[in-house]
Amino acid sequence: MATIDPEVRSSLLEQRYTDVREHTEDLAAPLSPEDQMVQSMPDVSPTKWHRGHTTWFFETFVLPRQNADYSPFHPAFGYIFNSYYEAIGSRHPRDQRGLISRPGVGEVADYRSHVDKAMAELFDSRSDDQTLSLVELGLHHEQQHQELLLMDIKHVLSCNPLLPEYRPSDEPFAAVSNRLGWAEHPGGQVEVGHTGFGFGFDNEFPRHRALLTPFALADRLVTCGEWIEFMEDGGYSRPELWLSDGWASVNQQGLDSPLYWSREDGGWRVFTLFGSRPVVESEPVCHVSYYEADAYAHWTGLRLPTETEWEVIAAQIAPDLGGCSHLHPVPDDRVLGDLFGEVWQWTAGAYSPYPGFRAAPGAVGEYNGKFMVNQHVLRGGACVTPDGHTRATYRNFFHPGSRWAFSGLRLARDN
Amino acid sequence: MATIDPEVRSSLLEQRYTDVREHTEDLAAPLSPEDQMVQSMPDVSPTKWHRGHTTWFFETFVLPRQNADYSPFHPAFGYIFNSYYEAIGSRHPRDQRGLISRPGVGEVADYRSHVDKAMAELFDSRSDDQTLSLVELGLHHEQQHQELLLMDIKHVLSCNPLLPEYRPSDEPFAAVSNRLGWAEHPGGQVEVGHTGFGFGFDNEFPRHRALLTPFALADRLVTCGEWIEFMEDGGYSRPELWLSDGWASVNQQGLDSPLYWSREDGGWRVFTLFGSRPVVESEPVCHVSYYEADAYAHWTGLRLPTETEWEVIAAQIAPDLGGCSHLHPVPDDRVLGDLFGEVWQWTAGAYSPYPGFRAAPGAVGEYNGKFMVNQHVLRGGACVTPDGHTRATYRNFFHPGSRWAFSGLRLARDN
Amino acid sequence: MATIDPEVRSSLLEQRYTDVREHTEDLAAPLSPEDQMVQSMPDVSPTKWHRGHTTWFFETFVLPRQNADYSPFHPAFGYIFNSYYEAIGSRHPRDQRGLISRPGVGEVADYRSHVDKAMAELFDSRSDDQTLSLVELGLHHEQQHQELLLMDIKHVLSCNPLLPEYRPSDEPFAAVSNRLGWAEHPGGQVEVGHTGFGFGFDNEFPRHRALLTPFALADRLVTCGEWIEFMEDGGYSRPELWLSDGWASVNQQGLDSPLYWSREDGGWRVFTLFGSRPVVESEPVCHVSYYEADAYAHWTGLRLPTETEWEVIAAQIAPDLGGCSHLHPVPDDRVLGDLFGEVWQWTAGAYSPYPGFRAAPGAVGEYNGKFMVNQHVLRGGACVTPDGHTRATYRNFFHPGSRWAFSGLRLARDN
Amino acid sequence: MATIDPEVRSSLLEQRYTDVREHTEDLAAPLSPEDQMVQSMPDVSPTKWHRGHTTWFFETFVLPRQNADYSPFHPAFGYIFNSYYEAIGSRHPRDQRGLISRPGVGEVADYRSHVDKAMAELFDSRSDDQTLSLVELGLHHEQQHQELLLMDIKHVLSCNPLLPEYRPSDEPFAAVSNRLGWAEHPGGQVEVGHTGFGFGFDNEFPRHRALLTPFALADRLVTCGEWIEFMEDGGYSRPELWLSDGWASVNQQGLDSPLYWSREDGGWRVFTLFGSRPVVESEPVCHVSYYEADAYAHWTGLRLPTETEWEVIAAQIAPDLGGCSHLHPVPDDRVLGDLFGEVWQWTAGAYSPYPGFRAAPGAVGEYNGKFMVNQHVLRGGACVTPDGHTRATYRNFFHPGSRWAFSGLRLARDN
Repeated sequence: MATIDPEVRSSLLEQRYTDVREHTEDLAAPLSPEDQMVQSMPDVSPTKWHRGHTTWFFETFVLPRQNADYSPFHPAFGYIFNSYYEAIGSRHPRDQRGLISRPGVGEVADYRSHVDKAMAELFDSRSDDQTLSLVELGLHHEQQHQELLLMDIKHVLSCNPLLPEYRPSDEPFAAVSNRLGWAEHPGGQVEVGHTGFGFGFDNEFPRHRALLTPFALADRLVTCGEWIEFMEDGGYSRPELWLSDGWASVNQQGLDSPLYWSREDGGWRVFTLFGSRPVVESEPVCHVSYYEADAYAHWTGLRLPTETEWEVIAAQIAPDLGGCSHLHPVPDDRVLGDLFGEVWQWTAGAYSPYPGFRAAPGAVGEYNGKFMVNQHVLRGGACVTPDGHTRATYRNFFHPGSRWAFSGLRLARDN
Repeated sequence: MATIDPEVRSSLLEQRYTDVREHTEDLAAPLSPEDQMVQSMPDVSPTKWHRGHTTWFFETFVLPRQNADYSPFHPAFGYIFNSYYEAIGSRHPRDQRGLISRPGVGEVADYRSHVDKAMAELFDSRSDDQTLSLVELGLHHEQQHQELLLMDIKHVLSCNPLLPEYRPSDEPFAAVSNRLGWAEHPGGQVEVGHTGFGFGFDNEFPRHRALLTPFALADRLVTCGEWIEFMEDGGYSRPELWLSDGWASVNQQGLDSPLYWSREDGGWRVFTLFGSRPVVESEPVCHVSYYEADAYAHWTGLRLPTETEWEVIAAQIAPDLGGCSHLHPVPDDRVLGDLFGEVWQWTAGAYSPYPGFRAAPGAVGEYNGKFMVNQHVLRGGACVTPDGHTRATYRNFFHPGSRWAFSGLRLARDN
Repeated sequence: MATIDPEVRSSLLEQRYTDVREHTEDLAAPLSPEDQMVQSMPDVSPTKWHRGHTTWFFETFVLPRQNADYSPFHPAFGYIFNSYYEAIGSRHPRDQRGLISRPGVGEVADYRSHVDKAMAELFDSRSDDQTLSLVELGLHHEQQHQELLLMDIKHVLSCNPLLPEYRPSDEPFAAVSNRLGWAEHPGGQVEVGHTGFGFGFDNEFPRHRALLTPFALADRLVTCGEWIEFMEDGGYSRPELWLSDGWASVNQQGLDSPLYWSREDGGWRVFTLFGSRPVVESEPVCHVSYYEADAYAHWTGLRLPTETEWEVIAAQIAPDLGGCSHLHPVPDDRVLGDLFGEVWQWTAGAYSPYPGFRAAPGAVGEYNGKFMVNQHVLRGGACVTPDGHTRATYRNFFHPGSRWAFSGLRLARDN
Repeated sequence: MATIDPEVRSSLLEQRYTDVREHTEDLAAPLSPEDQMVQSMPDVSPTKWHRGHTTWFFETFVLPRQNADYSPFHPAFGYIFNSYYEAIGSRHPRDQRGLISRPGVGEVADYRSHVDKAMAELFDSRSDDQTLSLVELGLHHEQQHQELLLMDIKHVLSCNPLLPEYRPSDEPFAAVSNRLGWAEHPGGQVEVGHTGFGFGFDNEFPRHRALLTPFALADRLVTCGEWIEFMEDGGYSRPELWLSDGWASVNQQGLDSPLYWSREDGGWRVFTLFGSRPVVESEPVCHVSYYEADAYAHWTGLRLPTETEWEVIAAQIAPDLGGCSHLHPVPDDRVLGDLFGEVWQWTAGAYSPYPGFRAAPGAVGEYNGKFMVNQHVLRGGACVTPDGHTRATYRNFFHPGSRWAFSGLRLARDN
């Protein structure tokens, strides 16, 4: 899809490869070998596994294309570090990743170096365009795992009675007061989906037309303070606000607040990557499920935006993707300034293929399409999304009950 | 939504009330008191419960509107026969309906008579339009439960080692050979949703415009013979054909054929409401989940239709809804003759509200909206759907793993 | 083991057969077809199933001995009504007995008549001694199921929101005040186990010597009033009183009182076979698990008796087994008058084979021996035990967490 | 119970303290920080946790007795490292020990040093006899955890696809052929239980008389070769050999061989602490449950010994407890030479208190008594039991389905 000169492309990708790979190691650096082992629930993977799996991606999908004689670093790593690619063969059960003490962090570092060296040789030689596209996919894949690594380690540390911090915070708490405004749209035929300029995942294609009725999108995210009002108005105990499956989740799991919140001395505290701290009311609410987001919207009498609505507004804004990775969402006083860098935003309707969607052939075709059921799309990006990784057409997705992603919400209304 | 004269409407509804209520009792007639007790899985309700619950609907939502002094037949029945209406109060746990031996079938019959008598008085007096609309809703509600009653008792009887028949069959087995043809559509803007003429559930509203790309819809259902080809080609053992959650269901439940099928002497038998019999290859395949339907479509290289696609084609056909309730799907040799009366047809994409959807206020507002997550829509109707109950805009829905509805599929393709 | 004349024995057994079989039908008589269907938890069997299973015992183990051409009433009943005899072949899963609506109560009655007729013919002809012993075993087996039938239907009815009574009560509530006294024993070598005079189950054999240290056995059962003191002293919230597995059961199941008790208006009510009524303090406490009984004994500073201790005292008392089947335990003001007819009494130590125990050969050898792990013995008898069914050497047994048997306790102490 | 001079006793204990504590660290030495983190099933604890918990025992039960001002190393460690002592307060859930990455192995080493230093001060001062007894208990407690550490890490490593070895083996495989002989006993009154000379756990007391009938005890353990015969004779597929709960475990878990065995190329391999190796037929069979042991005994027509039988024979043998910790059971060609050092031996009958048993007062009273239900006793010792830790009166115990202990069996028979 790109028409750039292959050598230039290869050279740019090589630099980007170095940066992305180093960033993964930087993210793991504050964590002890023990921290990197833990799988605190089936959805979570150990840090060490993320470091190995992203390496396995290049070893499996890229290196053999260039060097037919390439022999894997270790014969069992294909089994250990495959995530869900059925076409590649059997794999270690997902919910038992926390049991694998060996390879240890040292051997995983060796694995990364080994593959990085082989990749350096690949960049030195002339690669075909499809190989370079797979390298690019591998880098975006690794960026996704950088975010997962942070989501996962936050959950891991939250399970420790010591409530350890991932990193000390050097920032004072922000407290910005934002009035809610609305970005209006007249409706009609619009175009959405990836244009083909720059990288996009297969689920962003094809670009296609859609029909909208007039609507408005909130110019800022829902805040913790607003969420507390919802809670105090009985939000978690009024079934009429909830989807049926959502109400079941409230009762089965005994939910009464977002994930990581806890009551203390009449107030609320929240566990963050900087450790435990009081909830700041002006911050965007985070770690709520689709069910919670929908119930909140119901409570306000408004609704969640559809994917299309969100995208047509976002596409008009120059996404300010700098300064991300601040690890905890903060308020932004610019109109629509919080579209991309604070919390992912749940959208109405389920994750479905775009009209005419075709999965890529082969194993990488398992990347997105096979998850298009029982999931809901989140748009935007979060304070743990790597710089430059997201865009207006990006479709993140999780099961509607998931809460460990940095997920919040932005309201919409019919006009 | 109807502008018919209130007295005429009341009189027509009264006749219809009598017919629908009697039909429920006719459906229960072949079943012993013991048969009517069984809850063979949490999704299934006992026959007796269906008879009570549909009665409770009129007692709770209709009778008190006309007669403020109406006192319920039994003080505990509100608890026992409420299905899921949170606004009405607490209720007996759904998965424990099979434990309630009392009221027995006799007392449930008394309950029905009692409410029918009160309803007769209501029809004799002048009712307001909204009350009559609730009566109408109650009748459509009872028809839905007539189909559920048959789905449920089929599952109940299938769990009995004696494999008893619900009713003896007087029909020979049909074996019709049908070539597959296609109904073509040029795409563009279309209108879908209920027009407001005649009854419709809230989830069929509002009628709205949608955008289509050119497509074609198969003019007949997928057959058992075709399904056997799929099975013999490894359909249930090739992960690349399946959605990820679907593949998990195959492995967790050990699926290798549609529900109610069993291998015998190298062939396949199927349990029906007429007892056990050999699979007939020309019959429409039935009791497959959304996951199975999607995997089959994947295998053919085609796809499932969207709701919109299905509806714009079906709306052009005069639905032939006569002759239903034949209890087992049969082939139909008319082009598109099997749209409504054989099996419900899974559609692509999840169950979502139409743009501008608003749930009805009050408890009946819990009818549809709160289920709009984690479900997929089925269109058409089935051989167990009561006469006159379905239409082109009707949106039936189940979880994608459900198999006990009379669910099959019809293919679509891009043009 | 008996030396009675075979013809006399056969004639006595025939009369007893008639009585026992009729008594089962009498117990089922107050129950509707629906009542007889319900399996309210996996441990519970439907009434109808008890009626069929006890019949199947004679059909399977007795009739073919006399008449090699005997053909079973129905080919599938062997599958449906086998409880746990592995040697007989496969069987319907225990936890799905409540799903079998057919055979209905009528057909089960026919089954009973059919087998009774065949048994009458057997009594008319000359039977060998071993056959008569199997008849005798079958009658004791049926009596055990008479008690199970009452235990089970009590649980079934307790799950119904209407709290229906099994039978109306014609008795006023007793309130007898009993001081606690002690039956002393000097210890030393004693003999326990069945002597061989009269019927005994295999687990009561062989009679053998045992060694005792001096002890005393309470001359009456622990009462509801005493249990309330235990509860009010924090009995259910003090881990130091409980066995580790018992404490886990308290927390997992949220136990705070015996089964069937419920708080109301500051007092306690209990569900009985006569319906719901206030707890009477002087009545023996009932429906407590081994864990609860042990915690109570711990709380008093005393202990539960061992089997041996219980038996050597009980064997000295002429067991007053008349007047049983009063359906709810009552106080008895005679010293040790409540050994046999009120509640089964948990004993310390686990259910083990006696030294030299040998299971009977063949399928009936599965009667007792294979359960000799993870169970505890209860001695005595209960208000639902059939007349003449129990004795001082009788070893009843349940898992230590079971509470649906009529199980209570009597204290012991070292002297 | 000991009458040794306090100063001598203190001095001896100090030396022993140093030895035992160092041995724990030696056992952990071959394991990486990651290895020491893993909890591969709820029964297993991480190595790191064992190191901390045994330290917590001294910090909690010993140090405050001597120094009322002793302040714990870390305020949260009491929560993290308490195993099951309810009297001490709340504790981290047992099945989540694998989630605690911090404290890491380094901090745990610091914790151990800190407590060892405080203990050295304690030994320097004059301690009362009860304090010294608690030190002694703490050392025996730590030895038990040394064995648990090895059992647990074996399970952990067995879950790793790389099948890593805990330690390389320098020994050739032994293959000794042993005929089975019998140690005979005439029965009669015997004395069992701890005499009070030397250390004993509370569950070994009081010494008491018991009555035996004549019996014989096998002079060697059941071997892997004999177990293979059992398997080849359908041992795992013949229900008549099994206790009912045992047969359920076979079916639910799909058992067909001892834990850690796997089929390969027509033979059997076994995972050991030396890695994976072929099964050696003359070795004692290990890692079988009580159910399996009982089924095997049933198959031979013999039986398991009772605790009393085992003890009266063993007490006559000078236990050869040297040379243990060889990490894998081996054959011993001396008569009864394998009583103590190869595998723990399941005994018949359940774990019960001895007549007159009293638990110690206070928190350490939770040591043994509260587990006296649903467990079976194993006698002897194993190749992973620390030197000098076991004796003829020692009562080890596990749930009858447990297989991760080094558990085997020795047969007995009536004479």
